[in-house]
Amino acid sequence: MGREAVKTIDAAPDMVLAGVLVRRADEETLAFPTGVYDDPVRLLETEQPDVWLDLTTPDTVVSHVDLAFAHGVRPVVGATGYQEADLARWNDQASQTGIGGIACPNFAIGALLMMRFAKEAAKWMPRAEIIELHHDKKKDMPSGTAIRTAREMETEYEIPIHSVRLPGLVAHQEVLFGGTGETLTIRHDSLTRESFMPGVLVACRGVMQLRQMVYGLEHLLW
Amino acid sequence: MGREAVKTIDAAPDMVLAGVLVRRADEETLAFPTGVYDDPVRLLETEQPDVWLDLTTPDTVVSHVDLAFAHGVRPVVGATGYQEADLARWNDQASQTGIGGIACPNFAIGALLMMRFAKEAAKWMPRAEIIELHHDKKKDMPSGTAIRTAREMETEYEIPIHSVRLPGLVAHQEVLFGGTGETLTIRHDSLTRESFMPGVLVACRGVMQLRQMVYGLEHLLW
Amino acid sequence: MGREAVKTIDAAPDMVLAGVLVRRADEETLAFPTGVYDDPVRLLETEQPDVWLDLTTPDTVVSHVDLAFAHGVRPVVGATGYQEADLARWNDQASQTGIGGIACPNFAIGALLMMRFAKEAAKWMPRAEIIELHHDKKKDMPSGTAIRTAREMETEYEIPIHSVRLPGLVAHQEVLFGGTGETLTIRHDSLTRESFMPGVLVACRGVMQLRQMVYGLEHLLW
Amino acid sequence: MGREAVKTIDAAPDMVLAGVLVRRADEETLAFPTGVYDDPVRLLETEQPDVWLDLTTPDTVVSHVDLAFAHGVRPVVGATGYQEADLARWNDQASQTGIGGIACPNFAIGALLMMRFAKEAAKWMPRAEIIELHHDKKKDMPSGTAIRTAREMETEYEIPIHSVRLPGLVAHQEVLFGGTGETLTIRHDSLTRESFMPGVLVACRGVMQLRQMVYGLEHLLW
Repeated sequence: MGREAVKTIDAAPDMVLAGVLVRRADEETLAFPTGVYDDPVRLLETEQPDVWLDLTTPDTVVSHVDLAFAHGVRPVVGATGYQEADLARWNDQASQTGIGGIACPNFAIGALLMMRFAKEAAKWMPRAEIIELHHDKKKDMPSGTAIRTAREMETEYEIPIHSVRLPGLVAHQEVLFGGTGETLTIRHDSLTRESFMPGVLVACRGVMQLRQMVYGLEHLLW
Repeated sequence: MGREAVKTIDAAPDMVLAGVLVRRADEETLAFPTGVYDDPVRLLETEQPDVWLDLTTPDTVVSHVDLAFAHGVRPVVGATGYQEADLARWNDQASQTGIGGIACPNFAIGALLMMRFAKEAAKWMPRAEIIELHHDKKKDMPSGTAIRTAREMETEYEIPIHSVRLPGLVAHQEVLFGGTGETLTIRHDSLTRESFMPGVLVACRGVMQLRQMVYGLEHLLW
Repeated sequence: MGREAVKTIDAAPDMVLAGVLVRRADEETLAFPTGVYDDPVRLLETEQPDVWLDLTTPDTVVSHVDLAFAHGVRPVVGATGYQEADLARWNDQASQTGIGGIACPNFAIGALLMMRFAKEAAKWMPRAEIIELHHDKKKDMPSGTAIRTAREMETEYEIPIHSVRLPGLVAHQEVLFGGTGETLTIRHDSLTRESFMPGVLVACRGVMQLRQMVYGLEHLLW
Repeated sequence: MGREAVKTIDAAPDMVLAGVLVRRADEETLAFPTGVYDDPVRLLETEQPDVWLDLTTPDTVVSHVDLAFAHGVRPVVGATGYQEADLARWNDQASQTGIGGIACPNFAIGALLMMRFAKEAAKWMPRAEIIELHHDKKKDMPSGTAIRTAREMETEYEIPIHSVRLPGLVAHQEVLFGGTGETLTIRHDSLTRESFMPGVLVACRGVMQLRQMVYGLEHLLW
């Protein structure tokens, strides 16, 4: 996903790719169209970017975002692995400094629309079930998106979540609502990591206007 | 659909079934739990109902609704076959008299949610196609719902509508949106006429509060 | 389903509806186009039919089929509730007397095709899952069809069965196969009881040629 | 697809990747785990392979396959663009020389199962429609797979083919059958080119046993 973002941001007419943090430089990363760093502090201090887009891993994301705030750089957090307490601390830092930030558990606009519609439909058709389908290498179940969707729906009924894990699948979710004599289905299919790129651009642009820490790309969309 | 509505309204704790208009009285209609009429004027004058629910046919709906307004009775129009000019006249009558009315091209709440979500999704994922699927006895194509959905979506792209007609189908519509590396699908399946009954109740209740003529059940929903 | 079968058989040009067994005669059953009985023995002895089509309930089906064999009448068994031991006894009776019979856990040809294709696909794409979806009044889960489908598939992997119960659904089953970079889905949607009628006719015609007891309509189809 | 095949064949324990034909050698092709050629004759004469797997383009496939036969090498033809006359000539060459060959318009086993099941289902449920869905960069419509599927189905009814072209889609096909009160759906989703690799291996192995030219991977499968 990092590689995809490098291409996308480099191609965006209104952005400059300030630098790229890599775990280990290799042939491919050396071909990146900008400076490549393996130390986040050196990157922050040398390039002084406007935005810190973090697509790293659960073991590094928290320290990176802390560093970004410390250097006055707005974080766009795509990685997962941070806790409620981390979010609370970032909220405080953003409020005190006026440096906005955004944490996005999902960048795919179609997935965000699915969640939004599921929440709205549940008001009118409260009997529903979520089926999420992923490739068989996915470790966790149910998916984070399914859990968030169910939480948003808040009907008086419990919303079952069923997980399918099979080869050949990528990342899919279906929310099925049953009413009197009718059903409504909202389905999202994510086939490539490119699906996150329009959302990454929205986040990187939108974070420039924020004065606080925001959770969820939907705050920049509707 | 009329028979279904007779049962539904008779069972509603907050409504009284004032009378039923039938084309021809028979064993079944004589068993209806209320007075049965074959003349709309006699029904209106004898029963003096609050609401006129019209589930009749294109050849009668217009004169019925005109009669309802003339008798000061609020129309809920489920039948089709009226024209723009009829709607305009009813609008005038409602505005002048303060007697509200509602015309509902679709009573199924799931179908209305589908249209609403399709309209919203089209803002973010403007490339889309509508596939509507109906039993092979359906005469018209594309369906009225598909046409209304496409009109609502108003993207810069043309929205193709494809119609499938096969035995075994009832009434289904799928709106498929294609974005970068992802798709979003909104699908409605209507399996029995019961699916219209929750919407019929919403319309009959809601029309009591209206002071004008309204087009579309969605105005009473969200 | 019995009422549907009365209409269907009565309309079949090559069949005569010999008589109908009812639990309790009422206005509707009295209107049936043939003799109506509440005693199976009297029906069998009076009408001496070629075929006994049993669409009754778990508490009566076994004694009915025993009676049919005892009267030399070929049973077509659509009701459920019989046990392995009942089937074994009917097998014996059929073998000894040469009176054929057929027990059909499913009359819907589309459902039988689904099972057949699922069995075949599992040889090539052994990773699969079954999702069966039914209205929320259905008591048992998983459905008998899902259990039979999984049993037929016999891959080296376990086939998970997931059951969805929601209002608005009728009777649906999806078998999803995952392979390298591809998925294959076989789905059956049964919307009305009419879907069983073509299979009922196949069974009633085919049982005339049988000399043994057969389990599954597929034996008369392919 | 060529790159994918290089990896797959190189990894197959029972095959040796004899050489790779490239249009133009570059950094990536030079890293291939075998000899790289830009001249098919030099490849054929130097490496003397058992099998010629052709995944090239319409402008080169015919001359390549002719060359393969001329060098006594069994062709596995994945490229498209050959004509009926080419197939006829290859049939003759194979019959005369006993060198088998296979042309595979589709290597995806799931797609072949879909076509096979569609053909079988059409015998029992002859009313059907094919919907094929592809990314919006696909030039031709309807897809070759849809045309072949419809041709195989051969019912007394015409089978409509509808094509959907939208971004976010990859390669999908649905065959929808409508019967009395029921529908049956067979759907294939191809998400990556890896989906062709199991079929490529089947073809490369199977062609070794052929003594004639065969059209369609299904001849090696069932």
